[in-house]
Amino acid sequence: MSAVLPELAALRERATILADLSGIHSLMFWDQNTMMPPAGAVARGDQSGTLEAVTHERLTDPQLGRLLDALEPWAAEQDPDGDDACLIRELRRDFEKAVRVPTSLAAEASRAAALGQAAWQQARAAADFSRFRDALALQLELRHRYVACFEGYEHPYDVLLDDFEPGMTTGKLRRLLGELADGLAPLVAGVATDEPPSESGPFGGPYEVEDQRRAVMDILEGVGFDPDGWRLDVAPHPFAQQIGTGDVRITTRYDLHDFAGAYFGSLHEFGHGLYAAGIPARLARSPLGTPVSLGVHESQSRLWENLVGRSRPFCAWALPRLAARLPGVLAGTTVDDLYRGINAVHRSLIRVEADETTYNLHIVLRFELELALMEGTLPVDDLPHAWNEGVHRLLGIDVPDDAHGVLQDVHWGAGLVGYFPTYTLGNLMAAQLWETLRADLPEIDAQLERGDFEPLRTWLREHVHVHGRKLSPPELLDRVTGQELAVAPFLRYLREKLVDAGVLASA
Amino acid sequence: MSAVLPELAALRERATILADLSGIHSLMFWDQNTMMPPAGAVARGDQSGTLEAVTHERLTDPQLGRLLDALEPWAAEQDPDGDDACLIRELRRDFEKAVRVPTSLAAEASRAAALGQAAWQQARAAADFSRFRDALALQLELRHRYVACFEGYEHPYDVLLDDFEPGMTTGKLRRLLGELADGLAPLVAGVATDEPPSESGPFGGPYEVEDQRRAVMDILEGVGFDPDGWRLDVAPHPFAQQIGTGDVRITTRYDLHDFAGAYFGSLHEFGHGLYAAGIPARLARSPLGTPVSLGVHESQSRLWENLVGRSRPFCAWALPRLAARLPGVLAGTTVDDLYRGINAVHRSLIRVEADETTYNLHIVLRFELELALMEGTLPVDDLPHAWNEGVHRLLGIDVPDDAHGVLQDVHWGAGLVGYFPTYTLGNLMAAQLWETLRADLPEIDAQLERGDFEPLRTWLREHVHVHGRKLSPPELLDRVTGQELAVAPFLRYLREKLVDAGVLASA
Repeated sequence: MSAVLPELAALRERATILADLSGIHSLMFWDQNTMMPPAGAVARGDQSGTLEAVTHERLTDPQLGRLLDALEPWAAEQDPDGDDACLIRELRRDFEKAVRVPTSLAAEASRAAALGQAAWQQARAAADFSRFRDALALQLELRHRYVACFEGYEHPYDVLLDDFEPGMTTGKLRRLLGELADGLAPLVAGVATDEPPSESGPFGGPYEVEDQRRAVMDILEGVGFDPDGWRLDVAPHPFAQQIGTGDVRITTRYDLHDFAGAYFGSLHEFGHGLYAAGIPARLARSPLGTPVSLGVHESQSRLWENLVGRSRPFCAWALPRLAARLPGVLAGTTVDDLYRGINAVHRSLIRVEADETTYNLHIVLRFELELALMEGTLPVDDLPHAWNEGVHRLLGIDVPDDAHGVLQDVHWGAGLVGYFPTYTLGNLMAAQLWETLRADLPEIDAQLERGDFEPLRTWLREHVHVHGRKLSPPELLDRVTGQELAVAPFLRYLREKLVDAGVLASA
Repeated sequence: MSAVLPELAALRERATILADLSGIHSLMFWDQNTMMPPAGAVARGDQSGTLEAVTHERLTDPQLGRLLDALEPWAAEQDPDGDDACLIRELRRDFEKAVRVPTSLAAEASRAAALGQAAWQQARAAADFSRFRDALALQLELRHRYVACFEGYEHPYDVLLDDFEPGMTTGKLRRLLGELADGLAPLVAGVATDEPPSESGPFGGPYEVEDQRRAVMDILEGVGFDPDGWRLDVAPHPFAQQIGTGDVRITTRYDLHDFAGAYFGSLHEFGHGLYAAGIPARLARSPLGTPVSLGVHESQSRLWENLVGRSRPFCAWALPRLAARLPGVLAGTTVDDLYRGINAVHRSLIRVEADETTYNLHIVLRFELELALMEGTLPVDDLPHAWNEGVHRLLGIDVPDDAHGVLQDVHWGAGLVGYFPTYTLGNLMAAQLWETLRADLPEIDAQLERGDFEPLRTWLREHVHVHGRKLSPPELLDRVTGQELAVAPFLRYLREKLVDAGVLASA
């Protein structure tokens, strides 16, 4: 086809506008969480609401539906991997999701998210679940009303999963997480200590914020952070955002008493940023120009944080750089000390502070509870008890109060149900990608140790990032690894590292 | 009327969306000039263009025109000062301006602005007007095509002025600026020196950037900068922006060798910010919630920069604070030294470095040339010669090259014709407001000297800021001062100060 169909040109134009509006929203989010003066919050909320409404109006425009109707027969005859065929498919997906949910329900959910987060904050501060109970019950009711807008699903939770991880189902997830819990139990039983995770570790401070920031920047610039197209700022809840091509912004936070948070957090957000930055510019101004799912997104952040950042060769490269900026404890630390220290396993209460080994058990718990809440087998009032019982069963420890238990995460207050599992999916995918990557890059350990990150970045870009949203997560995994999503690679990787680091006695 | 007319409710809703989109655009502009990594520029340009197009589509929606048609008969019976009557009037103004200009011309102008600025940069770097000549000729042609979209004007330049200063005409401006030039000539002849303005002054450095920043913040927090709702950042071309209620952002730049730029620049932008911040919150999400014109906006910035910042009582308040942060030269400076030094008069080539006395002569020159270019009496090729001749006539100095002459300002490259005069209009209005203010606040000098800025801020808010865009500039001036815009108050103020500071011998 030499000339572009007029309908296709019109569709591309609409896709461009939607992508630009989404980039603007990213900027507003970044600014709100890094730069905005506190008194600007109400106006910013209004402006965000307006931009969402303007975007929603364009996404649900019946003319967009007619363009898709007109183009789908043409797309069916094209290469399904072609940009235009993918664009039509993904815009159809976005359009259908948007038109099925009544504006009134979307508005109600948006209000409930704001109120739910406020109720959660108060409840957590008071360590009192009863103050959060009604907000959570409302969120569950709204999730059911949301599910009811769709049809053809096997399990209501499938609909929620699909918003975060296209192609994932409740059945698959139940099998994967069951197998993972079974595999982790003996590992944790064998090596976990009851000490709290941080401060005692090799990165215990105190270290000045400015020294930490310089240390983080040295590491980030070493792995591929380019100041011409990236920023690093401080945010209370760190995140990464791509505002547009050439504009990637990551955030971190500094704890005077423990450098580990800023260090691994920055590597984590770098992984997210690199994914966004690696999507080809030709896809940037379209819905294809974004990471395909939260799970795949998380696979990239966890890969840099854990599979790279907690590896022995990376420790060898990073330690002298870190010690130069942060003398104190690190000046007397060996690579072995560091490697063992950052891979130690602790039974702990708080998900975001958990180590790589126990982390996924926190997710297993949340998935079990979400499913029981959505299925109606767990009444909301019984949730704290079920939480505490699950922590005891999975981690072998007791929960002292709700703030260190069921109230520790904001997600449910914000109406995010089906989101937690993507953290673990990311861990599983990262380990699977890592096996393939190691086979493709036999020199990877030596490259990491000498600080040559170009081959790794190139591999990730050419195998994962390059597709943007063109391939679904299962397709992506299949093309790169030839496998379905599986638990074994993650368990293999973890066991090998724990043995190598001297944390686990070799079997 | 107890219930709101449905058309009015619909109009208010549309106004809310337009105002929110405008606030978002302000955020994008601020970010682009302060935070954005350089490689993000192209994507940001695309996103700005998209937001402009989305806004333009809403502003030119025929349904908005129908709502205005339906509401105007109702508005004619209401108090013309009422919020709704003003909203209808100002939205009609915005709507008419938007629908009369074809989208293709607006797009062409936008492209020409980008190219014109690039051509200007190259020409200025080479001090060679010939490289800018074609871009300027195109801008003038586009301005003529823009003017042709309107009707009922006396002079084509009126149409351009109206975009920046509603109610101003070429005829009025010619009289005002002629009178001003006549009044300034003897003053400048009597006192101006040929030394260059900066570095030799009382703020000559070197001072570290961080010390300058702290000194600026001490002064700003003293006059009313509230960190809860304001930010100060660095920008190469300083500006002020209100993103939304409770979110005012000002910028400055630091010159190691002269603190004057950061100091007076910050006071200037503070004045702009205070105006925006002083507009009532109930007007915020509507076109009424913005400063009414560039001239009035500039009156507020110049008032803080010059009438306050260059006054003797303010020098007395500020000097010990500045000397504490910036010992060096300032530790040995007296209030009299400072007051005289910052009011010295220099014949100089560069507008943005000019002192308060000669500044307006730079504007007179630009106005004369803009008018001649638009009237066709001055061919573009003769502009550099006319510029140099004008500088000699008005300021008595010779222009060494085009970079220090006709190429010093970006405005014409960006297509801004009719903009320069608003700087002088701001100076004139500031002096007129100041006379009324001093009569209303007889203790103002003592208040400034002891750092009590609340009465001044309150007066400005209650007399100027409170109106937002509800009153046109001439109406505003009339209500506050009982006068039309005039030159005499500015000349009186200037002469008195120059005498008081010992720069001019008393007549």
